[in-house]
Amino acid sequence: MIKSHDSFYMQRALDLAKRGIYTTTPNPNVGCVIVKDEQIIGEGYHYKAGQPHAEVYALNMAGDNAKGATVYVTLEPCSHYGRTPPCANALIEAQVKRVVIAMLDPNPMVSGYGVQRLKEAGIDVDVGLLTEQAEQINRGFLKRMRTGKPFIILKMAASLDGKTAMASGESKWITSSEARQDVQTLRAKCSAILSTSATVLADDPRLTVRWSAFPEKIKQHYPITDIRQPIRIILDSQHRLTLKEQLFKQQGQIWLIRKVAFKGEKLPDNVKIVVDPTPEPLINLDWLFTTLAQAQINSIWVEAGAQFAGALIQQNLVDELIIYLAPKLLGHQARSLCKLPHLNQLSDCPTFQFVDVTTIGPDLRLRLKTTPPDVSL
Amino acid sequence: MIKSHDSFYMQRALDLAKRGIYTTTPNPNVGCVIVKDEQIIGEGYHYKAGQPHAEVYALNMAGDNAKGATVYVTLEPCSHYGRTPPCANALIEAQVKRVVIAMLDPNPMVSGYGVQRLKEAGIDVDVGLLTEQAEQINRGFLKRMRTGKPFIILKMAASLDGKTAMASGESKWITSSEARQDVQTLRAKCSAILSTSATVLADDPRLTVRWSAFPEKIKQHYPITDIRQPIRIILDSQHRLTLKEQLFKQQGQIWLIRKVAFKGEKLPDNVKIVVDPTPEPLINLDWLFTTLAQAQINSIWVEAGAQFAGALIQQNLVDELIIYLAPKLLGHQARSLCKLPHLNQLSDCPTFQFVDVTTIGPDLRLRLKTTPPDVSL
Repeated sequence: MIKSHDSFYMQRALDLAKRGIYTTTPNPNVGCVIVKDEQIIGEGYHYKAGQPHAEVYALNMAGDNAKGATVYVTLEPCSHYGRTPPCANALIEAQVKRVVIAMLDPNPMVSGYGVQRLKEAGIDVDVGLLTEQAEQINRGFLKRMRTGKPFIILKMAASLDGKTAMASGESKWITSSEARQDVQTLRAKCSAILSTSATVLADDPRLTVRWSAFPEKIKQHYPITDIRQPIRIILDSQHRLTLKEQLFKQQGQIWLIRKVAFKGEKLPDNVKIVVDPTPEPLINLDWLFTTLAQAQINSIWVEAGAQFAGALIQQNLVDELIIYLAPKLLGHQARSLCKLPHLNQLSDCPTFQFVDVTTIGPDLRLRLKTTPPDVSL
Repeated sequence: MIKSHDSFYMQRALDLAKRGIYTTTPNPNVGCVIVKDEQIIGEGYHYKAGQPHAEVYALNMAGDNAKGATVYVTLEPCSHYGRTPPCANALIEAQVKRVVIAMLDPNPMVSGYGVQRLKEAGIDVDVGLLTEQAEQINRGFLKRMRTGKPFIILKMAASLDGKTAMASGESKWITSSEARQDVQTLRAKCSAILSTSATVLADDPRLTVRWSAFPEKIKQHYPITDIRQPIRIILDSQHRLTLKEQLFKQQGQIWLIRKVAFKGEKLPDNVKIVVDPTPEPLINLDWLFTTLAQAQINSIWVEAGAQFAGALIQQNLVDELIIYLAPKLLGHQARSLCKLPHLNQLSDCPTFQFVDVTTIGPDLRLRLKTTPPDVSL
């Protein structure tokens, strides 16, 4: 049974889990707190794939004292041998008395097995505390595990009248330097950044994470040596990139998605070609996202133009929409935010829900999620 | 000297002043609190032009007890004979000891005279407490007094991508019923509603305030018998309205702004023609707003199309921009929020500042003000 002080310790475990948000991919973020006699005697969080799980750090800190203690962990302890031995075993060996778990493992192959093993060992187990928060911090990992597709965040920037560039094409910068800095920290949380050759040719962006642009608060928990460049994935079906673009001069992996591979093409070490085998002339987005999820990519940050944004929205592939809104008006001749096919009726328009609105410098950042299908009868 | 508890009583006076926000035009909103021995012994607010000022209500309530008391009033007490005798005289006669005033009268002809008269009578006077709030509740009246022009609020409604209607023209309704209800209460605060014959012919709106659409909280202080229909001002330079539109079937005054008056035209009692004497074919907006201010119109709520919205913005006539933003995407073929002339550079684009963002049902309401000219060197 969940007790009133359980939430307090689970919240602490969730806060710890969040510290790994820039580093754990493809693994989930997990935090763990061990409590005995109302004292925290051990805590830890998962920092990086290949390094120990949260429970191991917490158990190490608690030592023999863990015997008879209560453990709070934000995700069901693993029961299988992966890169590290199963955490369920470690908890059993430490002879803890009770384990409180925010949510079960999303992998249908192993979900509930960790709980089962703990219970079989005579440990009290409670599942389902602050589950919504626990879901939120791992939404990329969870979506990949549950659906075999990554979590897709489409980022756009526009004026009040939904324009992204002047008629001339000038678009540097509609939003503020504060908004562009904010993009850095959100990019850094994702496993990959997706764009198109059209955008690369038009804007020549780097699409990297720049540690120097991070707020001090984040830098504290995320030293420059641990900076993880999200994989840059560029759709280049027509083979338009020359490898001389700025993008290629930055550190970090680049995957070019093409329809054809040319034998003998000389590529830098950090560039790889992934060929879409489907017959259509354009990249098949269903194939793409399935392939990327299979490559353990949890979440994708999309920065592209009106055409590709429109395609994603139209195919209902966007999980979260982020729009930086600048308090300017560009007028009817400027370029529109997204291209959609001709829609006959208002009721046919893609609809979202506002989740969060934040002031970023002089701009607003709107976060929206896809509206779930209407299930009312 | 302002004392610490003065803010408390002035806040009460401001809260009282706000109760008149739907009714006092063309007069300002004023609240008054009289305090003696840390007890409120009298309070009042101005409710309607022609009825007593706030100070009179408060003095009546305090009676002889006002002698030696402190008076908090949100606007400098008047010193001239208008529809009512000067409040400064009434305060002197009541032998109050001290008067605290949030702000001076904005009318340059009389500003400071009320204070002077009180001081000459030996009363302690403090000016300048919660001035920003006091300015805010009378921003229409203040702008008219200071500049000879009304305060202009431009209301727009759009999708996330800044579209106001489908390519087909369908626009009912992009925003929610909650947003449309919110419009009712904001319309009601203004002295007039301004639109164009193009909008009237396209949408056939009523442009009235519907008491039934008000939230209960507002209805309490604003009985249906006191409903004040803002004057509906329609630009009809080309004489396109037939007087058969829905607009004309509603209660409340309508002023048609035309370039020519036809002799012998038969008009309903509530309709009047105002002729723009300037030589250009379009209505001269400078003439219009000066004329409306001379007719004691403090604030104007504008609901019109992309063309007129663009004209107002381009001529820098908008004081506040209100955009209801629906979480939908209409695509590049839909109709844009405002028409602006061709702009060459981003730096030429009209720029605003976000003042307030509120969730209204599923939509957002953005309030923006014009950015003051950059005075940095």
